[in-house]
Amino acid sequence: MDYETPQFFRVIQYAQQADRDVIDMVSGSPDWDPPAGLCDGLRDYADLDAADYQYPPSVGLAELRARIAARRGVDRSRVLVTNGTGEANHLAMVGGLEQFSGEEVLLTDPVYPYYAGRANFLDADVGFVPVEANGRLDPEQLRERASDETAVIVVNSPNNPTGAVYDADAMAAFVAIAEEHDALLVSDEVYDHFDYTGRFTSALDCGSDHVVATNAFSKSMAITGFRVGYAVFPPEDGPTGDLLDRARTRHMLTNVTGSRPAQYAVLRALQTTGPEYYADVRARLTDRIDTFCDALDDAGAAYTRPDGGFYVMARFEDYPGSFEHVYELIDETGVAGMPGEAFGDSRSKWFRFALVTPRVDEAAKRLADFFA
Amino acid sequence: MDYETPQFFRVIQYAQQADRDVIDMVSGSPDWDPPAGLCDGLRDYADLDAADYQYPPSVGLAELRARIAARRGVDRSRVLVTNGTGEANHLAMVGGLEQFSGEEVLLTDPVYPYYAGRANFLDADVGFVPVEANGRLDPEQLRERASDETAVIVVNSPNNPTGAVYDADAMAAFVAIAEEHDALLVSDEVYDHFDYTGRFTSALDCGSDHVVATNAFSKSMAITGFRVGYAVFPPEDGPTGDLLDRARTRHMLTNVTGSRPAQYAVLRALQTTGPEYYADVRARLTDRIDTFCDALDDAGAAYTRPDGGFYVMARFEDYPGSFEHVYELIDETGVAGMPGEAFGDSRSKWFRFALVTPRVDEAAKRLADFFA
Repeated sequence: MDYETPQFFRVIQYAQQADRDVIDMVSGSPDWDPPAGLCDGLRDYADLDAADYQYPPSVGLAELRARIAARRGVDRSRVLVTNGTGEANHLAMVGGLEQFSGEEVLLTDPVYPYYAGRANFLDADVGFVPVEANGRLDPEQLRERASDETAVIVVNSPNNPTGAVYDADAMAAFVAIAEEHDALLVSDEVYDHFDYTGRFTSALDCGSDHVVATNAFSKSMAITGFRVGYAVFPPEDGPTGDLLDRARTRHMLTNVTGSRPAQYAVLRALQTTGPEYYADVRARLTDRIDTFCDALDDAGAAYTRPDGGFYVMARFEDYPGSFEHVYELIDETGVAGMPGEAFGDSRSKWFRFALVTPRVDEAAKRLADFFA
Repeated sequence: MDYETPQFFRVIQYAQQADRDVIDMVSGSPDWDPPAGLCDGLRDYADLDAADYQYPPSVGLAELRARIAARRGVDRSRVLVTNGTGEANHLAMVGGLEQFSGEEVLLTDPVYPYYAGRANFLDADVGFVPVEANGRLDPEQLRERASDETAVIVVNSPNNPTGAVYDADAMAAFVAIAEEHDALLVSDEVYDHFDYTGRFTSALDCGSDHVVATNAFSKSMAITGFRVGYAVFPPEDGPTGDLLDRARTRHMLTNVTGSRPAQYAVLRALQTTGPEYYADVRARLTDRIDTFCDALDDAGAAYTRPDGGFYVMARFEDYPGSFEHVYELIDETGVAGMPGEAFGDSRSKWFRFALVTPRVDEAAKRLADFFA
C-alpha cells in the first residue's frame, strides 16, 4: 500500500471530475459551523496592534496552553501546541523511536493511513495488530504482538475508521503493555468530543511516563484548516523527560512556531463556547448515524454502528471496497466513500463513509436503492 | 555553541526582568503595521462558510501559489507553501542532505543561528565559510571550502546578521559551486524586499536544478506570527525533481498543511498591496539606519552600514559582544542587542542591533552617551 500519496485525494479528484452530482463522504472535514466565538476572535484579532502579529511563543500562546492543561488535568509545561494533530503525532512518533529501543511502530489494522505513511517515511518497521469485528482493539492481541523491538504503539480513540471507543480498562492495558516493553504509547484523541457512549478515556488518566496524548481543535471546532493541535508529553523532570525537550527543539527547528491568528481564535472559542455547542454537534451526528445505518439495513449491508467519531464502515455482499468499486459507486449513485483497502488488509471488503455532509439522507437513499 | 536553545530568548528574558525601561533591539519582529489588505482579508475570512475553514491543499491555496509563482517567474508546480521560512529551510536542507552525496552543510560565519541549529539537529557535518569584513561572502572563499563532501550550501541575501546583499555575479558563482560539487544551494531570500542597493538577485535567476529558494511574508508584511512562507524547488520533471516530491511528502506527513486563515489573508494582501507599502517601510528603515549609524560614529564604534535587511552589527573598543556585555548594556543603558558570539566565532567582538523599534533614536543616543 502506498501511504505516501494520500489516497483520499485520488477519490476526491475522481468525484470532482465525475459527470454528475456527487455527495462527498470521503474527507474528514466537518460541514458544520465553528463556534461563534472563533469567528469573533478572528475579527478582533484583525484590529490588534503590530506586536500581536509577531511570533507567538514556540510552544504556543501561554493562555491557550493553560486552557488545554486545565482541560487535560496536567501541568502547563507538558503542553506543546502544534500545527494540528498531524505535527503532534509526528513529534510523538519520532520522539518514541529516538527515545526507546527497538525500531518497530505498532499500529492497528485497519489503520488511519497517515500513521502508516509517517512510520514508513521514518524508516520504522511497521507492525499491524488486527482489531475485533466490532472495531475494538483487544489488549490481548496487542500484548501478543508487542515485543522489546517495539518502540511506539499508536492507538486512536474514538477511532478512525472503525468508530470504536476504548474503555478505561483497555486503555490501561495498552499503557501497561507500552511500559512492559519500554515503548511509547501515542494516543491520538482528536475525536474525544465525538464519544456517544460516555466510555471515552484519555490515556493521560493512566499517569504514565510512557504516554503522549495528541489532539487538536480541527474536528471539535470544525476547523481542520486552522492547524491548531497539541501534544501532552510526560513531565520534563521524569524518567522520559527528554521526549518533551527533544520535541520542543524539533518543533522549533522545523516550524519555529504555529500560526498566531489561528491560536488566538481558538483561545477565544475555548473561553466562550459552552458544552451545548459540542452536544449539538453530537446530536446532529447521531441523527446522521441513525439515518445512514437504517439505509444500510435496507441495503442489506453489514456495518458497525460507530460508538464515536463520524465514520461508518459498511460492507456490501459481493461488492468489495476496492478503488474500482468506489469509482463505480460515484458514477452509478453519486455517493463518494473511501475504499476499505486504503485502511489496511483486514477491511479490504469494506467502505468507509464520512458523515460530514448535510445530505446523509439522500446518500443513504441512493445506496439503498443501488444495492436493494 | 548551543544552537538548539534559541539564544535570543535568553536575552529577551533578561531584558524583560530588568529593573528599568529597555529598548528591544533583539528580535527580528517588525514593529510596523502589516498591509491594510491583510487585516481586511482576516475580517472577510471570519464571514466565510464552514467549507472555507477546512484543510487547504497541502501545498497551499492555489491562487496564493499562482501569485508567488508569477512574482518569482516560475511554474506554479514548483511552489510549496510552508509554515514560514523556517519550514521551507528545513525541507530544503533535509532534502539536499538526502538527495546529494556528502554529509556536509556549508554555512557562513557569521551565521543565522537557526541554520546551524538545524544542521546539527540533522546530524550533518557543519562547515563555516568566513565572510569579508564588509559582510559579503567571497565566492573564492566558498570555492576553497566546498568539496564533494558538501551536500548543502546555505546563503542568505539580504543577510542576517551582516546586512550584505549578494550581487548577480556572486550568486551565479555560488550556484556554479553547488553544481560542481553536486550539492544543493539553499538561498534564503526572506529579506528580499529590504534591499537598499538595487543589487539583490534571486538564486532562481540562475535557472539551476541545484537551487531551492526560500522566502516568507513574515518580514515583508510584518507578520512573523502568521507562518506563511514558501520554497521554490527545481522542476519536478528535471534531474533533481525528487527534491520537490520528497518535500511535499515530508510536509504532508509533518504538518499536513498550513493555516488557512493566514494564507487567505496573505493572498488578499498580495492582491491589494501596491509597491508604496514596501517603499514606505524601506524609507522608514533607511531613516533608522542613518540615525543609528550616526550615533555609532559618535560612540566611536566600528560598524557595517547594511545594504539590506534591518540589522546593524557594531563593535565597541575594548567591549566585546559577549552575553555579559549584552546584559551590562541592558542594565546600564536600557538597550538590548544580541551578542555577536551568538552568530559565530568571527563576530564574537560585535553586537547585532535590530532596527525594529520606533525608539532607534533614543537607543542610539543612549549608546553614544555610554561609549562617549
